[in-house]
Amino acid sequence: MASQILRRTLGSRYLANHRTFSSASTPIRATLFPGDGIGPEISESVKQIFHAAEVPIEWEEHYVGTEIDPRTQSFLTWESLESVRRNKVGLKGPMATPIGKGHRSLNLTLRKELNLYANVRPCYSLKGYKTRYDNVDLITIRENTEGEYSGLEHQVVRGVVESLKIITRQASLRVAEYAFHYAKAHGRERVSAIHKANIMQKTDGLFLKCCREVAEKYPEIQYEEVVIDNCCMMLVKNPALFDVLVMPNLYGDIISDLCAGLIGGLGLTPSCNIGEGGIALAEAVHGSAPDIAGKNLANPTALLLSSVTMLRHLDLHDTADRIQNAILDTIAEGKYRTADLGGSSKTTEFTKAIIDHL
Amino acid sequence: MASQILRRTLGSRYLANHRTFSSASTPIRATLFPGDGIGPEISESVKQIFHAAEVPIEWEEHYVGTEIDPRTQSFLTWESLESVRRNKVGLKGPMATPIGKGHRSLNLTLRKELNLYANVRPCYSLKGYKTRYDNVDLITIRENTEGEYSGLEHQVVRGVVESLKIITRQASLRVAEYAFHYAKAHGRERVSAIHKANIMQKTDGLFLKCCREVAEKYPEIQYEEVVIDNCCMMLVKNPALFDVLVMPNLYGDIISDLCAGLIGGLGLTPSCNIGEGGIALAEAVHGSAPDIAGKNLANPTALLLSSVTMLRHLDLHDTADRIQNAILDTIAEGKYRTADLGGSSKTTEFTKAIIDHL
Ligand SMILES: CC(C)[C@H](C(=O)O)[C@@H](O)C(=O)O
Ligand SMILES: CC(C)[C@H](C(=O)O)[C@@H](O)C(=O)O
Repeated sequence: MASQILRRTLGSRYLANHRTFSSASTPIRATLFPGDGIGPEISESVKQIFHAAEVPIEWEEHYVGTEIDPRTQSFLTWESLESVRRNKVGLKGPMATPIGKGHRSLNLTLRKELNLYANVRPCYSLKGYKTRYDNVDLITIRENTEGEYSGLEHQVVRGVVESLKIITRQASLRVAEYAFHYAKAHGRERVSAIHKANIMQKTDGLFLKCCREVAEKYPEIQYEEVVIDNCCMMLVKNPALFDVLVMPNLYGDIISDLCAGLIGGLGLTPSCNIGEGGIALAEAVHGSAPDIAGKNLANPTALLLSSVTMLRHLDLHDTADRIQNAILDTIAEGKYRTADLGGSSKTTEFTKAIIDHL
Repeated sequence: MASQILRRTLGSRYLANHRTFSSASTPIRATLFPGDGIGPEISESVKQIFHAAEVPIEWEEHYVGTEIDPRTQSFLTWESLESVRRNKVGLKGPMATPIGKGHRSLNLTLRKELNLYANVRPCYSLKGYKTRYDNVDLITIRENTEGEYSGLEHQVVRGVVESLKIITRQASLRVAEYAFHYAKAHGRERVSAIHKANIMQKTDGLFLKCCREVAEKYPEIQYEEVVIDNCCMMLVKNPALFDVLVMPNLYGDIISDLCAGLIGGLGLTPSCNIGEGGIALAEAVHGSAPDIAGKNLANPTALLLSSVTMLRHLDLHDTADRIQNAILDTIAEGKYRTADLGGSSKTTEFTKAIIDHL
């Protein structure tokens, strides 16, 4: 089963406009943002496993987060952004949101600066980790740059405020293209566009129009449109009704978390952001868990599975398979599990168990 | 258990500004919109059960729906609206959306015309009808007039469209007041305000500010704020974490359907709309199911449970208890169930079984 899931969720190249990377003999440079809180510990786990698996990757580590250098007062340096732009591939841990006026979330800033237009979250049941749902196997693809996240808001008169949701043809086509390309490359059967065009006829209507245009170019992939409220009801009743889901920003935010909940939560789901020019920034989407930071208690699974999506983006499929299987087998075996999964293993013990399964 | 749920979900008066109704000796006039598709059949079920239970209600029936009179070309007559305004209490079946330009959904038109500002959906596990979740017992209270449903949309330039989400202090306070009043009147412990104020700081921020103001007046009710994506994840992982949820329009649309999914779907959940001036319009929120219309196959449960909320609004608690228990007991017994619940009973057989349980 694991191998079937590998093939269908992550088994082919991850990117639409992927570029050619250097052969395995020269190491590939990849950016690493360990992030805040538990970020450094779970990043250490990735580094150790990559080292043990002899992955030909050289990390270029940069600190992005809220524990800032008092001299620069910087949460995010120019050098960090340049590193991703140059390497075109990176991995990021959780980042806290800077406190104080005028600071938006670092996640949003990265999305904007690197033009990360599609967020891809595979979500599949983990063998041996029981939830109410078996055999979940979904991919949510979220438009990541516009919609309800425009940041355009104002007070009309006292007590009356408005936010603008912006939908463009360009961004909608781009994410729809990515979704269908992904579906085809991964042997998926169906793409469902999620919307509320019965209410937002112009914005969500344009999104659907773009999806339909792209769907026509992929006659081998089934296409359907599902209203978001109905989609959420169907997902909790029977997630097997869906395959690949593509949607505007806020719906993607909501539905990807709902799907993560079906299989156990954000601690277990990988995520990868796809940007213009072939950039891929994989990330753990859970929080930085400051309460357990530095205590060797964090579960590195989400970051590890995200790092696997990064390897696939680099076409390093054999290494990706080896590492992904070692992670899934360790969880399935159930001997070493961190506290969030009901076990009592330390982060380092769980990491070592994965290395032993390589 | 049924009686405990009765008390906590529907056991007290349903309304903030409820008015005094005539005593049981004079019949109470209530408006009935049977609606489209299966609407007439499930309305018939309500009428028969009310008749058998000797409910002192006289129905004032009006047709609102898409099968229109060719002479008037009307989906919704002035007389229908006046009937609800006069009676202040009504029940509506499902209505299809008129096809063709310029027609918005009849549900939306009724919300707007009657100023139905709060939509209340109790959602609780039905004994004997197994889903993946036990003991769900949630109330979603949705702002029903503004937010993403403003209808304000336009094309900025070709390929760029925008929708306006409007949040007002007045509507936010009104629905927050209703939610806290409801929580207190029904012995509920906690109100959770659902939002995305980390992104929509002004609009959702104003909504939260209003909820906080009202929360201060109810020190006996716990208050918390939960981001919508996280809320959806927690709902599918463990719905027992929540009690009463209050939120802007679109989030309410999404979360109330998600919650319905947890206990089996929209065919099983009651809904009641609360309007200014003490109006209550109870409704089945599922579709009109034209494929099975007229075949005596429809499940009247959602409309029946909605009619019970109407009785509670009228302070007819004993009758409400009797009918609600008869419905829940019939389902729990499992002998008579309609096809959607895996049974083979006709609508009329299920109705008769409920009457036998009265
Ligand atoms: C932290 C928050 C701004 C972010 C979002 O809303 O996109 C998060 O929920 C996510 O899904 O990555
Ligand atoms: C039919 C549709 C316009 C409506 C809504 O979005 O409000 C429905 O989903 C509901 O929840 O009553």
